[in-house]
Amino acid sequence: MCARARARALGFIPGILPPGPLNAITDVAGVLVGQVTVIEGEGTRTGVTAIRPHPGNPYADRVPAGLFAMNGFGKMAGVTQVQELGELETPILLTNTLAVGRAMEALVDWTLAQPGNGQVRSVNAVVGETNDGRLNDIRARGVTALHCAEALAIAAPGPVAEGSVGAGTGTMAFGWKGGIGTSSRVLPAALGGWTVGALVQANYGGALCMAGLEVGRRLQKYYLAEHVAQQADADGSVMVILATDAPLSDRNLQRLARRAMAGIARTGAAFSDGSGDYALAFATHPEVIRTSARRAGVAHYADLPNDKASPLFVAAAEATEEAVLNALTMATTIESRINGRRCVGRSLPLDRVLALQGC
Amino acid sequence: MCARARARALGFIPGILPPGPLNAITDVAGVLVGQVTVIEGEGTRTGVTAIRPHPGNPYADRVPAGLFAMNGFGKMAGVTQVQELGELETPILLTNTLAVGRAMEALVDWTLAQPGNGQVRSVNAVVGETNDGRLNDIRARGVTALHCAEALAIAAPGPVAEGSVGAGTGTMAFGWKGGIGTSSRVLPAALGGWTVGALVQANYGGALCMAGLEVGRRLQKYYLAEHVAQQADADGSVMVILATDAPLSDRNLQRLARRAMAGIARTGAAFSDGSGDYALAFATHPEVIRTSARRAGVAHYADLPNDKASPLFVAAAEATEEAVLNALTMATTIESRINGRRCVGRSLPLDRVLALQGC
Amino acid sequence: MCARARARALGFIPGILPPGPLNAITDVAGVLVGQVTVIEGEGTRTGVTAIRPHPGNPYADRVPAGLFAMNGFGKMAGVTQVQELGELETPILLTNTLAVGRAMEALVDWTLAQPGNGQVRSVNAVVGETNDGRLNDIRARGVTALHCAEALAIAAPGPVAEGSVGAGTGTMAFGWKGGIGTSSRVLPAALGGWTVGALVQANYGGALCMAGLEVGRRLQKYYLAEHVAQQADADGSVMVILATDAPLSDRNLQRLARRAMAGIARTGAAFSDGSGDYALAFATHPEVIRTSARRAGVAHYADLPNDKASPLFVAAAEATEEAVLNALTMATTIESRINGRRCVGRSLPLDRVLALQGC
Amino acid sequence: MCARARARALGFIPGILPPGPLNAITDVAGVLVGQVTVIEGEGTRTGVTAIRPHPGNPYADRVPAGLFAMNGFGKMAGVTQVQELGELETPILLTNTLAVGRAMEALVDWTLAQPGNGQVRSVNAVVGETNDGRLNDIRARGVTALHCAEALAIAAPGPVAEGSVGAGTGTMAFGWKGGIGTSSRVLPAALGGWTVGALVQANYGGALCMAGLEVGRRLQKYYLAEHVAQQADADGSVMVILATDAPLSDRNLQRLARRAMAGIARTGAAFSDGSGDYALAFATHPEVIRTSARRAGVAHYADLPNDKASPLFVAAAEATEEAVLNALTMATTIESRINGRRCVGRSLPLDRVLALQGC
Repeated sequence: MCARARARALGFIPGILPPGPLNAITDVAGVLVGQVTVIEGEGTRTGVTAIRPHPGNPYADRVPAGLFAMNGFGKMAGVTQVQELGELETPILLTNTLAVGRAMEALVDWTLAQPGNGQVRSVNAVVGETNDGRLNDIRARGVTALHCAEALAIAAPGPVAEGSVGAGTGTMAFGWKGGIGTSSRVLPAALGGWTVGALVQANYGGALCMAGLEVGRRLQKYYLAEHVAQQADADGSVMVILATDAPLSDRNLQRLARRAMAGIARTGAAFSDGSGDYALAFATHPEVIRTSARRAGVAHYADLPNDKASPLFVAAAEATEEAVLNALTMATTIESRINGRRCVGRSLPLDRVLALQGC
Repeated sequence: MCARARARALGFIPGILPPGPLNAITDVAGVLVGQVTVIEGEGTRTGVTAIRPHPGNPYADRVPAGLFAMNGFGKMAGVTQVQELGELETPILLTNTLAVGRAMEALVDWTLAQPGNGQVRSVNAVVGETNDGRLNDIRARGVTALHCAEALAIAAPGPVAEGSVGAGTGTMAFGWKGGIGTSSRVLPAALGGWTVGALVQANYGGALCMAGLEVGRRLQKYYLAEHVAQQADADGSVMVILATDAPLSDRNLQRLARRAMAGIARTGAAFSDGSGDYALAFATHPEVIRTSARRAGVAHYADLPNDKASPLFVAAAEATEEAVLNALTMATTIESRINGRRCVGRSLPLDRVLALQGC
Repeated sequence: MCARARARALGFIPGILPPGPLNAITDVAGVLVGQVTVIEGEGTRTGVTAIRPHPGNPYADRVPAGLFAMNGFGKMAGVTQVQELGELETPILLTNTLAVGRAMEALVDWTLAQPGNGQVRSVNAVVGETNDGRLNDIRARGVTALHCAEALAIAAPGPVAEGSVGAGTGTMAFGWKGGIGTSSRVLPAALGGWTVGALVQANYGGALCMAGLEVGRRLQKYYLAEHVAQQADADGSVMVILATDAPLSDRNLQRLARRAMAGIARTGAAFSDGSGDYALAFATHPEVIRTSARRAGVAHYADLPNDKASPLFVAAAEATEEAVLNALTMATTIESRINGRRCVGRSLPLDRVLALQGC
Repeated sequence: MCARARARALGFIPGILPPGPLNAITDVAGVLVGQVTVIEGEGTRTGVTAIRPHPGNPYADRVPAGLFAMNGFGKMAGVTQVQELGELETPILLTNTLAVGRAMEALVDWTLAQPGNGQVRSVNAVVGETNDGRLNDIRARGVTALHCAEALAIAAPGPVAEGSVGAGTGTMAFGWKGGIGTSSRVLPAALGGWTVGALVQANYGGALCMAGLEVGRRLQKYYLAEHVAQQADADGSVMVILATDAPLSDRNLQRLARRAMAGIARTGAAFSDGSGDYALAFATHPEVIRTSARRAGVAHYADLPNDKASPLFVAAAEATEEAVLNALTMATTIESRINGRRCVGRSLPLDRVLALQGC
């Protein structure tokens, strides 16, 4: 049986553009990721993933941001203020559906406690979620504000753990074990040389397609399969976080976020009613950061023109697609017992998948 | 000095349409309101207001709903799912900005505990907020999930307490003490005889106008006043909840919500950057409720045509306007001490206001 | 009987901020307005109003722009591209509902013919409209592309004709003759000294309120009036064009556009189903113009921070409100015959209105 | 060399669900399509495609509708009213970018002339477009209102011509000749048995993928290709029209429209800045049609619940994907001369594509 590996190592290489050195969202300089896996007792199989846009205080030095809900059946927090002001003022937390309130609490705590935030009275906590209730005893509310605080505290640059970790601990995707995945793309120097990174919390369904290979149908596990024992559930949701070092405006970041859904589509997503499919994009270019100083008066910001954003749009779709594949190929089997019922999220069978590749 | 009274009793009667018997959101049959005022120590001056669309289980029997953010600088929870599915599945809680996470927790708890909800794993908690940090030591986080639970538990039909109560305990409006206000309108029988009710959490500014009387300017307290000692802050936010017994679709409820902002405009709102101004509307007509039974397959719903909704639009604006006036005329002075600084939210001086009326 | 006059001269002075020298949209330097009134035969009572954001080629030197549909029952052209790219690339034309296609044709013609546009193959023509069919034989299609071309050709700085001219020739408002109106506001130097100008095509209804005076109800002509002979129709629409010399991003221009609706609300608008109520805002600050040169690569743009935009928001609401009042007080009676039926749009009776003021 | 054929006949069968009998939008009973191809002189290579939702008067008997702009860089007309009222009141015309005004004129003419529409004074003409200026001398304005009228007049049920016809005459896709394509899907009886049909005007780019086969990369013609002579342009746009006989609300039709973009994504779309990518969906179920009679008062409409719409969402994506493939496999080479320059839109080389399939 194959050991878990990243999709690219297995020969699944979606798209045209090359990845960055880590093939991770952390290829965008300054981005930090921290994850806490919460496995307790028979039922709790969940966790938290934190993304910090930069190592500083995001309330003081705000990154422009945009978001898109391809299907808004979800509980994402902080939506309208990001849309209205075009910026993030907190890190982003990903967790399970019923833990959004606690994650907001944790982000408020964290923000109030940052040096320099002693007078802050308003915090727009940004929290994404997917429903890991197929493997996690979600009603037991295993995630606490402390778990969230820890994820924020340990956030770091460098490689990002993938698969059944953090907010991906209990997620399913396409009928197999889903999880956290990440990837990146780097534009050629002639197109600006910018990096786009993606991190996904994959918990949705459809008919899995890996860089064009119809894995779901070939392995007879997919949504709407007729006369098939293992018809996969399509609901569940996906959260995509995009980071870039290109000088994009909040409007173009919103457009970038929309392109993440092209990547999700290519993995075979059903975009079912019950799947809350969101993307949030932010930019870290020094000349787009809304520092306290710049926010004191009329400031000047760098801006990539609309028609120069197209290659970044392609990069966002590709990085998102590969991040999902990584979530699946890296995820390990998770078992639990909920209300006395045994639940198993089996990892994608890489040997069977590789066998298909040969055909 | 005048006793606190409702605006209508003081001669401020905005609009054309008559109110319902209570002149309150609870004139819409079935709607329940519960409020918990949290006054603790020197600094905590805050609270919770709960609105239940009907006495049953809203997760089973969902009301169609629509919402509008005139200015999305706010932390309202549950937004995208209401927009996507066009329905409410929980009661609505209003509270302060930093308590949204706890209020979500409380709504999740409440929903999981409802009879029949034993298998529920996904809850779209709807929480609105305004920032009462001018009078309330908001960083002290005075609101707990228990306060929220209590507000839900005591929600009842009948008259609604107004002014410095519940989620309006610590709010300011137009430089005076704001609060909770409510009002309603009833259409003539020839136009359907429907009722529209509004409840507001008023915490915003501008130049107060009461049914056409320019109170803010006459009393020399308004936003952008030059050479005036008491220039009022315009930020803060307003939440408007609209209920109707008309058979409106979710789309037309979204349109109804937009009209609430006409009422807010007429009170003299500045709609400043820092004021998160939201309206959420739902309908309780028995033939628009999405019961479990109806949601099992193709069902038939009643629908008022687009062009018959216009009188309801007027009703929504008028009820919202009067609800704000009631919040101000009913609010009582609130004092606190935050970080050693004395804070006073003085009630609108009714005697001075009435004196203006004579002119 | 009073001669037509602007609202301010009659004592109706909405808001707090002072107007610019012309009290017109053309107080924003560079903005040009051209109007063609089309009165032909018994029935045609319509026209065109052109607004050019600056004297140059707007396709080469684009102004950032944002728009808002308070009620999207209208045929405005160019909407999605303005939203997507955050910019105008043509002048704006206002005309009647059934002439939008011709106005688009004219804008395409005009754009293709501009010096330097020889290779242009895509034109996002922006056209607003209201339905003047109560006074104009709209099915006769009196507006031609030539009329539109002329309005563009004669667009000029300086005073703007108001009332029953251009696109306001056949419009009604609040049961009286509506039309074109304009106004402006200038911020104090301490708040940036920026100018905001508004131009409206007023063709909607409700219960007219003039700077707080309830004219509609006092004169017994208003929407939803019961037992009143002259119940006014609420439908019809309003278009608001806002210009500013402040360095606003497209996102903040979209927010500015939303505030125009506060001004419309204060005039007593019913915001009825059949009234398409739109605002479009653009900025002319030299450092926000997207010149060809800047669009060639990463450029730097000036930006007023979110929280410094609040005074501009107030200015937009005030200028819009006064522009509507000017449309009414300047409009002259228009008569026509449509299908053998005599139609009269009577001008607002200023003597009766002034008599109310005394009370 | 292979004769042109539909994708399915060539072995490209995207998705899971079966097509209807015609594999066309006209599998949705009542839908009519009419196309006029405009080839004149050396340069004009363009046309018009009309879609009528049913054979009756759509102004009287309105179909619910929803739309989505994945990228709003386009000139689609009628957008805000469809969004606001959730309905179509005219047929839909597709044409080229600079002909939208004329197409609106034609729809107004057509609507005013329908029996029973003698009093109609407001028409929301819905027109979609893509820019065929790579093959068509678009500045010559070859499409006239007469062409549009003819397309409406000849609209009929039955098979739909595909490829270089109608509004697809001059379009390009993925560097090859694009055009009009159509497809449909039928749900199993257990899922309602509903039909979803798609018609596309394909004029966009990226890296062509045909049911998982990476045709663009294998044939060395794709957007962002480095060191490749034939780098394909990604701009241009795509319009997707979806029809269904399922009883979907306007909100769920908007959701259906969003899923069309999953199909577009799977064809390899770059979703570049300059590609205006729109989908418009309508429903023809007799119990969702807003007849004059139903619009007279409170009416009852059938409604498929949110969570029963998921299979339709899959159908919309699949039908859209296959419609694009049909556009490409059916399109024939088109040549023109524009400003003295020879332009060629070569048809997708089916023999080379089939050769890839074997691998």
